Amino acid sequence: MQALPQPVVELSAALGQLPGIGPRSAERLALHLAQTEVGAVRSLSETLTRCREAIVLCDNCGALAEKQPCSICDDLQREGALICLVEQATDILSLEKAGTFRGRYHVLGGRISPLDGVEPEDLRIAELEERIGRESVKEVILALSTDVEGDATSHYLAKRLTEKGVQVTRVAHGLPAGSGLEFADELTLSRALEGRRPME
Amino acid sequence: MQALPQPVVELSAALGQLPGIGPRSAERLALHLAQTEVGAVRSLSETLTRCREAIVLCDNCGALAEKQPCSICDDLQREGALICLVEQATDILSLEKAGTFRGRYHVLGGRISPLDGVEPEDLRIAELEERIGRESVKEVILALSTDVEGDATSHYLAKRLTEKGVQVTRVAHGLPAGSGLEFADELTLSRALEGRRPME
Repeated sequence: MQALPQPVVELSAALGQLPGIGPRSAERLALHLAQTEVGAVRSLSETLTRCREAIVLCDNCGALAEKQPCSICDDLQREGALICLVEQATDILSLEKAGTFRGRYHVLGGRISPLDGVEPEDLRIAELEERIGRESVKEVILALSTDVEGDATSHYLAKRLTEKGVQVTRVAHGLPAGSGLEFADELTLSRALEGRRPME
Repeated sequence: MQALPQPVVELSAALGQLPGIGPRSAERLALHLAQTEVGAVRSLSETLTRCREAIVLCDNCGALAEKQPCSICDDLQREGALICLVEQATDILSLEKAGTFRGRYHVLGGRISPLDGVEPEDLRIAELEERIGRESVKEVILALSTDVEGDATSHYLAKRLTEKGVQVTRVAHGLPAGSGLEFADELTLSRALEGRRPME
């Protein structure tokens, strides 16, 4: 029996490292590329490197950007006194899609997780504190994930940032729009009850 | 609202060209790569080009190979008088996985399809005829797909190759192994009935 040619196996292993690409898809992609014109593969490969090299992380907020500072930090129309703190650079894209937030962002770069060896010093907290002073920030909105580590990080930051004299708020947790009670899990329901507000 | 950075959009478009990668997966992959170390992306990109360049199509049979001729054409243990004709290079891999065929292969490179502008001259039929003479082939087994175009191509080739004095056979069509009548479609069932053989 003749196995797959070695370069196809190697290519398939490399593609299988990408998220969401299992061993079967990786093999199918590798076989597709093996049968694609050399020129087209070279051009894909060149696009990969070129695009990656064109991306920088904004020195100020940590967002994916094409220039320093990123277009949000550079936008004078944005409210400088309001910073929304997110875990990852891609979270900014989700919030920007919603299109209602007019402040700036700060990427934390993860959450405190002693079990994984992530301590507060490993996150971009010092940079945030420095921005709070420099940009005369009045409010920091925490928009971290709602699991145990995200919650712990939010509480840690609320304490630490309040001492800097800034107001710390957290995005609301409750029922998602367009969904009924029957689809909500218990934690979401209990948070929705806890966070109830008077009808206006 | 800030959209995706332009390089991410471009990368996502390039990845979306690959088979089985929809717009959502392409965007997820592009964002993953945008946040991956530059070195790792360069290395993936280099693997892509290097592996593709290491792959050749065997001049003799058309299989994906690392050298000329491919390891099957080069294998003296293989029965040279028996050629299995397949549509694509990857079909050889499927047959080799089954591991029972001991002859050689020939890749046709498609099937006759006048609607798509594929005429017999566009396929590797002349190369096959030349091999039949040179390698004293006695039998050609047709293993093309079983749709309308595959069937038409098989009939065309049976006629053309028989005139060269070679025996032309076709792989059996019938019920797949391990499956019952209730899962078989009508065409498979009628082919299974047509192809019935005496019990031995």
